[in-house]
Amino acid sequence: MKMYLLSLSALFFATPAHAADDLASNTAWVVLASALVFFMQAGFALLESGMSRAKNAVNVMMKNYMDGCVGGIVFWLVGFGLMFGANTTGWYGMSHFAPHEGEPWDFTFLLFQMMFAATAATIASGAMAERTRYAGYLVGAVVISGFIYPVFGSWVWSGAYGGQGWLAKMGFIDFAGSTVVHSVGAWCALAGILVLGPRLGRFAADGTPRAIPGHNLSLVTLGGFVLWLGWFGFNAGSTLAMNHSLGLIALNTHLAAAAGAIGAMLALRSTSSPLLLTTTINGSLGGLVSITAGCATMLPGYAILTGLIAGFVVVFGMRLLDSLGLDDVVGAVPVHGFCGIWGTLAAGLFFTGDLFSWARVSVQLIGSGVAFLWAFPMALAMYFIVAKTIGLRTSTQDEQRGLDFAEHAEVGYPEFNQAVTFDGAELTRRA
Amino acid sequence: MKMYLLSLSALFFATPAHAADDLASNTAWVVLASALVFFMQAGFALLESGMSRAKNAVNVMMKNYMDGCVGGIVFWLVGFGLMFGANTTGWYGMSHFAPHEGEPWDFTFLLFQMMFAATAATIASGAMAERTRYAGYLVGAVVISGFIYPVFGSWVWSGAYGGQGWLAKMGFIDFAGSTVVHSVGAWCALAGILVLGPRLGRFAADGTPRAIPGHNLSLVTLGGFVLWLGWFGFNAGSTLAMNHSLGLIALNTHLAAAAGAIGAMLALRSTSSPLLLTTTINGSLGGLVSITAGCATMLPGYAILTGLIAGFVVVFGMRLLDSLGLDDVVGAVPVHGFCGIWGTLAAGLFFTGDLFSWARVSVQLIGSGVAFLWAFPMALAMYFIVAKTIGLRTSTQDEQRGLDFAEHAEVGYPEFNQAVTFDGAELTRRA
Amino acid sequence: MKMYLLSLSALFFATPAHAADDLASNTAWVVLASALVFFMQAGFALLESGMSRAKNAVNVMMKNYMDGCVGGIVFWLVGFGLMFGANTTGWYGMSHFAPHEGEPWDFTFLLFQMMFAATAATIASGAMAERTRYAGYLVGAVVISGFIYPVFGSWVWSGAYGGQGWLAKMGFIDFAGSTVVHSVGAWCALAGILVLGPRLGRFAADGTPRAIPGHNLSLVTLGGFVLWLGWFGFNAGSTLAMNHSLGLIALNTHLAAAAGAIGAMLALRSTSSPLLLTTTINGSLGGLVSITAGCATMLPGYAILTGLIAGFVVVFGMRLLDSLGLDDVVGAVPVHGFCGIWGTLAAGLFFTGDLFSWARVSVQLIGSGVAFLWAFPMALAMYFIVAKTIGLRTSTQDEQRGLDFAEHAEVGYPEFNQAVTFDGAELTRRA
Repeated sequence: MKMYLLSLSALFFATPAHAADDLASNTAWVVLASALVFFMQAGFALLESGMSRAKNAVNVMMKNYMDGCVGGIVFWLVGFGLMFGANTTGWYGMSHFAPHEGEPWDFTFLLFQMMFAATAATIASGAMAERTRYAGYLVGAVVISGFIYPVFGSWVWSGAYGGQGWLAKMGFIDFAGSTVVHSVGAWCALAGILVLGPRLGRFAADGTPRAIPGHNLSLVTLGGFVLWLGWFGFNAGSTLAMNHSLGLIALNTHLAAAAGAIGAMLALRSTSSPLLLTTTINGSLGGLVSITAGCATMLPGYAILTGLIAGFVVVFGMRLLDSLGLDDVVGAVPVHGFCGIWGTLAAGLFFTGDLFSWARVSVQLIGSGVAFLWAFPMALAMYFIVAKTIGLRTSTQDEQRGLDFAEHAEVGYPEFNQAVTFDGAELTRRA
Repeated sequence: MKMYLLSLSALFFATPAHAADDLASNTAWVVLASALVFFMQAGFALLESGMSRAKNAVNVMMKNYMDGCVGGIVFWLVGFGLMFGANTTGWYGMSHFAPHEGEPWDFTFLLFQMMFAATAATIASGAMAERTRYAGYLVGAVVISGFIYPVFGSWVWSGAYGGQGWLAKMGFIDFAGSTVVHSVGAWCALAGILVLGPRLGRFAADGTPRAIPGHNLSLVTLGGFVLWLGWFGFNAGSTLAMNHSLGLIALNTHLAAAAGAIGAMLALRSTSSPLLLTTTINGSLGGLVSITAGCATMLPGYAILTGLIAGFVVVFGMRLLDSLGLDDVVGAVPVHGFCGIWGTLAAGLFFTGDLFSWARVSVQLIGSGVAFLWAFPMALAMYFIVAKTIGLRTSTQDEQRGLDFAEHAEVGYPEFNQAVTFDGAELTRRA
Repeated sequence: MKMYLLSLSALFFATPAHAADDLASNTAWVVLASALVFFMQAGFALLESGMSRAKNAVNVMMKNYMDGCVGGIVFWLVGFGLMFGANTTGWYGMSHFAPHEGEPWDFTFLLFQMMFAATAATIASGAMAERTRYAGYLVGAVVISGFIYPVFGSWVWSGAYGGQGWLAKMGFIDFAGSTVVHSVGAWCALAGILVLGPRLGRFAADGTPRAIPGHNLSLVTLGGFVLWLGWFGFNAGSTLAMNHSLGLIALNTHLAAAAGAIGAMLALRSTSSPLLLTTTINGSLGGLVSITAGCATMLPGYAILTGLIAGFVVVFGMRLLDSLGLDDVVGAVPVHGFCGIWGTLAAGLFFTGDLFSWARVSVQLIGSGVAFLWAFPMALAMYFIVAKTIGLRTSTQDEQRGLDFAEHAEVGYPEFNQAVTFDGAELTRRA
């Protein structure tokens, strides 16, 4: 049987010249996909809040709610123009800032891309949870969605309004953003947790990691389901068109997620570790991140393999961070960063019709490396400046009390008796 | 660049004569939008329950679950015919009651409108939470979705089966229902809280408002996300067609919501108030309500402005209610009522191609005023009669115990130690 | 007015020969429906976890998360081929195992069917909650989604790749799976609870049933909403095409759900029972199960009647199980099994154009009976073998401690003071 693979050039560009019928159906498809990608913001909020302690539930939720709002408006103002505006040099776009008028398709395309920018920005929130000041976090979200993400994005995805990014010219493939969205977000998260340092009590004096359990694993699970759901829009929506390729893309997405959870479970079993719910869910998310680059250009069997390996990457990536003394509350760096690299390579390895081509894989490696070399130092400098000016880390007292009390004067669950754990000590209170 | 604005007459009527292809795609679009609007019912349930105390969690959830059920069946029985049936006078429809047979499109159109009726009915449940008897509430939901909402709706939106409403004839614009759905629902809510009076302990003897914190802000946030998601169906689905205009509508919806949250945050900062999660979420909902009327006929920059102002309207509207001694548990009146008025005006002010036209704005003002003059006295009379007959407010003892125990013999969280607060006093119990 | 009823043969088969335009839109429709059916998995997780005790919250969530993953991969490996592969005998399919290549539509069709298999498998998890070992449960999920479900399915729905099932040849109608998915799942659940026996303390020594309240009714309600939402994809997606019939199908789905909740409420009132939230939600789910068979072939008035009766079936079915000493934690057997039978009969009774035909009803009765005679003994044997080999029921100590602690080393809500109830006795702990 013959595979109907899409011409990549047709996929990677917004196509302003639709037939009348296609314009209607493509618009509907992309609007629905945008709604699904928007809902991923809720998935992140649930996952990250549930993996944090109850005393920070409001703060984590609030950051996820607001980075979509602030990041969305900032992306509209400058990010969209930088990323998709006319890109004569291959290094940045320079038109379509604060787009107010346009053809119908322009608005549809902007909406979808705005959701992607919010996703990139929100990845940092989970890694940096429970010790980051609200104002400092929002500044970071503005810089990521308005500058770091769109500039890198212009190297790969620009072209809607003329020009082509320099990485795209090299043949770099990243269909829906394993690197462009997820790795870039993860390297910003990594920079953030380096500047912040770990939470109080997260590592013993001798460096032994101590788990700080999340307060609500039901919400974590729901968050995993919601992210999985939204990913159908994230990947299949990236066609920007209602066409026959959506089925394979969505199937690959689903298979990789399922295989990711199984991979994580096998990795836990193979090391005689308990079968943690949180790690299993992270495994499926790692599968989703890793299929994002190649979902349109590989066959289902390879999607399963890609996801399965991602599950192992998540488990051993989390241990690596622990051993380095890095405190990533939700595992964002292994899930979005390490699996982003793996998925970008997999898109090269398992490219239908050109399997295991070293030429392809080497370009994919270059693109992954460039993403790190761009996003990590930029974010490091940005968070460092934030830390030295308006402040990034809360005071020890505020961290102990919880950010909900300290920053929002609201608590998540005021009627429930809670035990708050910090710094090895323990204090029982009623909120 | 030229804007493709839709002819309004094409948007406001169900179009029974589709081409074969269009019928299929329009049906799919409206069914999906209906599913999204249905899911808003879950958003309301989460938001309202989370903002109430744990002792009423089941009761609030149950009201939201059942008003969709009861209201849906009643709307099918009589509401749909009143609202969309042949409207010879301009004041009410008189056909299509309990529609059992029909052309395929009839069923699709009915489904979508049924979801809207449930939305209008459910707005009251949050405002009136924690002190309203279940039976009395359900009677209210029946009257709102079967009579108050559809009669007003027939003045603006009828025409699917002949005739035109008298407000529509005047040129009143309300694309997806800032006034028709949200303000009408809010004025019913206002009537309800006037008849009920405030919860025990909500105001001190001297009238000072005392905040009663909601029991689960994680669910409140999730509710905000779900409502925002559903609103894409609410607004973009109101085209009743899969066409090129959906992108602008959805983009405006998203931008106004984001700007609404930012507006609320700015309003809180400008008055040195803490950055409450609940108020921020209400800000985004205010943005959504306010863009509902004009989302198809204004440009993105104005959508941001509309949402931003809505954020301020929410914050100061909530304070106005507090100062008047009105107890609106979730802020439904500011969010759906005041922002409904603002959005209806904004639809006139920012009408593409006819900006800031006094003629337009004055018609919008008349429509907003008429909505209040119809819905508020009708609902006031209805709730008054309910109060005098089957009873609207629970006994003091039941209010103190919580409605879950009193009315449903189920409690929301039976295993968690809780502290129940009422009337200034406090009682610790384990449910 | 004339009804446009679809030719059933057009509905029941995947149609590999689409026009180019139809292929695009049908693909988009089925992918979106697949995403909605996927999300039902989250609905089951929330409903089942919320109806269980907090000490098992993680375990129930984990089972729902993983049976979709494991079941999905197994269905891809063998289930799909058994169910939809070339079916020369009418009794099983024999092609398309582990499909790796194919035409675009093949992938779309596979994705949708994979979601259905996961639904069938997950029904057992709720009934068997709080006392089933994780490993044993997963083996059951593998056998159900890889063998029991697809073999029965091939008798009714095969044909996509040639051949026709023997029940389909008899004229058995089950549009979206009242019997094929829901009853089959429920009979597996029934077998499971028979092999397991009731939870400790669920029945007094003299057989009197004792209710064990669920720990989080907010999540139960959200689960109900999510399932209802997903059912639009489940039923309307079963057209496998974007066409004009979707409106009636979705409308019938919604009306039956609403009527199911009302039916349950009336049944509770008529027996002077408290208006339980959990039972009301189960009523709406019963309505959804019961409309699944006939949603494409009956008119709205009959959909309401079908749902209303399903509400009664749920209430009295739950009592029947109680009186038989069967411990079905969430009511899966009444909701999916008994309402599955009723819905399958209703699809025959209310078939448009051939109402109340005994010929039709008798075939429907045969199909329902065959489903029981296939699924129940197979599942009974399977769970029996699992019980005798790797073990199905946890130890008494693990059941008392909770499966979260015993099997996952994670607890759902580690910061909240909880009271754990078991075996009549009670123990207060802080997790």
